[in-house]
Amino acid sequence: MKLTEFSIIDTFFTKQKVKRSDVFVGIGDDCAITKVPKNYRLVTTVDTMVAGMHFLNDTPAAAIGHKIAAVSLSDLAAMGAIPAWATLAITLPKANSKWLKQFCQGLFTILKKYNVQLIGGNTTAGPLTITSQISGFVPNKKALLRSSAKIGDLIYVTGTLGDAGLALQLLHKQKSLNTKDKKFLIQRLQYPEPRVKEGQQLLKIAHAAIDISDGLAADLSHILYNSNVGATLFIEDLPLSAALKNNTSPFTAWKFALTSGDDYELCITIPPHLKSAVTKFNNKFSCGLKQIGIIEKKPGLRLQLQDKTFSLTKLGYEHFSR
Amino acid sequence: MKLTEFSIIDTFFTKQKVKRSDVFVGIGDDCAITKVPKNYRLVTTVDTMVAGMHFLNDTPAAAIGHKIAAVSLSDLAAMGAIPAWATLAITLPKANSKWLKQFCQGLFTILKKYNVQLIGGNTTAGPLTITSQISGFVPNKKALLRSSAKIGDLIYVTGTLGDAGLALQLLHKQKSLNTKDKKFLIQRLQYPEPRVKEGQQLLKIAHAAIDISDGLAADLSHILYNSNVGATLFIEDLPLSAALKNNTSPFTAWKFALTSGDDYELCITIPPHLKSAVTKFNNKFSCGLKQIGIIEKKPGLRLQLQDKTFSLTKLGYEHFSR
Repeated sequence: MKLTEFSIIDTFFTKQKVKRSDVFVGIGDDCAITKVPKNYRLVTTVDTMVAGMHFLNDTPAAAIGHKIAAVSLSDLAAMGAIPAWATLAITLPKANSKWLKQFCQGLFTILKKYNVQLIGGNTTAGPLTITSQISGFVPNKKALLRSSAKIGDLIYVTGTLGDAGLALQLLHKQKSLNTKDKKFLIQRLQYPEPRVKEGQQLLKIAHAAIDISDGLAADLSHILYNSNVGATLFIEDLPLSAALKNNTSPFTAWKFALTSGDDYELCITIPPHLKSAVTKFNNKFSCGLKQIGIIEKKPGLRLQLQDKTFSLTKLGYEHFSR
Repeated sequence: MKLTEFSIIDTFFTKQKVKRSDVFVGIGDDCAITKVPKNYRLVTTVDTMVAGMHFLNDTPAAAIGHKIAAVSLSDLAAMGAIPAWATLAITLPKANSKWLKQFCQGLFTILKKYNVQLIGGNTTAGPLTITSQISGFVPNKKALLRSSAKIGDLIYVTGTLGDAGLALQLLHKQKSLNTKDKKFLIQRLQYPEPRVKEGQQLLKIAHAAIDISDGLAADLSHILYNSNVGATLFIEDLPLSAALKNNTSPFTAWKFALTSGDDYELCITIPPHLKSAVTKFNNKFSCGLKQIGIIEKKPGLRLQLQDKTFSLTKLGYEHFSR
């Protein structure tokens, strides 16, 4: 069967299981029509992934489908939002049924997990580029912003950092290591889990939040800049996975944790008097929250290792600057 | 100055003039936060343009900026919606200040015209691909759908058809014709005017609507399929510009009008008893509405020329099928 734009949409993109009652018109008209619940605001994010830039050309299609949604869901998580609807714009060099089927399997599995309905999209021919936009809700006047960190706040992160960075290096260099560690690390790179429920819980206790897509140092710096504050990070407190520690020196592990992107954990600032809420969070969510630093008046980001304080010159990953 | 992802956003994309009161957080956080007015529903569309596929590589950057917004605004127009917010995902082979400046000039001029605020986006390196999503509102339970055409409705279109198709041929073949006609046709291709205000007016009188992006026959067929009806079009009634008529035979002009895309006019079905509302519309809007056919029970699209009825075998433009 020759795949056309319309048959691709019909065959692969209209057979999803999520049917939300707030979607009046979904895929198949000029626009989608939806309803934001009363007393909630609309929250929107958009992300693009380009073959060879954001993923290697041999990345499984299911992982690409998962990840394009995961990165947008992670942005919603960083606002404490409830996800609802997605659109997808996909540019494909050729219409390959097997690839599309696996891509959709990865995409619709994660969308279903977070009750997100695909409401629209666009399919064109061209170099492989995928843009997803996911929208959701936050209660009126509530949201985790980058600009709300306060002096004295404690800085926390969820999960572990640096895993995706090491995984990417593994895939590039074919470095050999034990199967269990390798599997864990590749999973962390290709199937990141957005901290959606965690973000909703943090909405009640955190001042500021961001998700770690470009590297902890770069992303935390956005909070510092937007909140007009500074911070010190305690290097030895950075949460590292066993797989990362097993396969790198401590310095290399810290470098990955600070500067490699694609972890999709949350970095949050919480006032110190809410430590008991953090304990509660850690009892509820397996990724946990770990304190790694403190917000200070003095601008800039300082790193502390034992008695020494130093600065990081190369901040994370930035497109165009390499 | 070396342009990085963040400096591109800062330099080019945050200096817009539209500041809407329903945007609480715009560009610069993990997500945008906005508010849909009470008693309105959210309307969303997404479009992608790929260099070499949707526009020639030497297309002026300002035209690309205009058009990526125009095609999405045209989708909103086809629902009768009020535009409000846009996001933009742009993948660029290299960060070229002059190109970006002109692109933004084209983009922000049309966004300002329709009071649309850019609330988020994504800038990455890669093959030139641009995806825009524009959202707006329709009153609760009101919208122009593809599925609402009724037997006996009269079929109308705005403006003239086929101009963009001839313009594209001109650009490919460097066909020579008089400067005035050429200028008009290229303008129609590169700077299409979305029928936003017209769509809002039509919301009061039309049953079904679609915008003509892939060609009248292909797009009208979506209305027919979704409404479970058929239609006859009167070929001699197709609205053609002087520039198109001056430079082609009648048959070629009709072929352009029926099958070439990129016109971004509206195709609407209106019950026959509302002819006076059509007259009113024509007094108000210079693009006008012209009756070109009728909705019938018998499925399929028929073309009538003088006494003969025939069918169209090649329907418009479809990606992947060429």
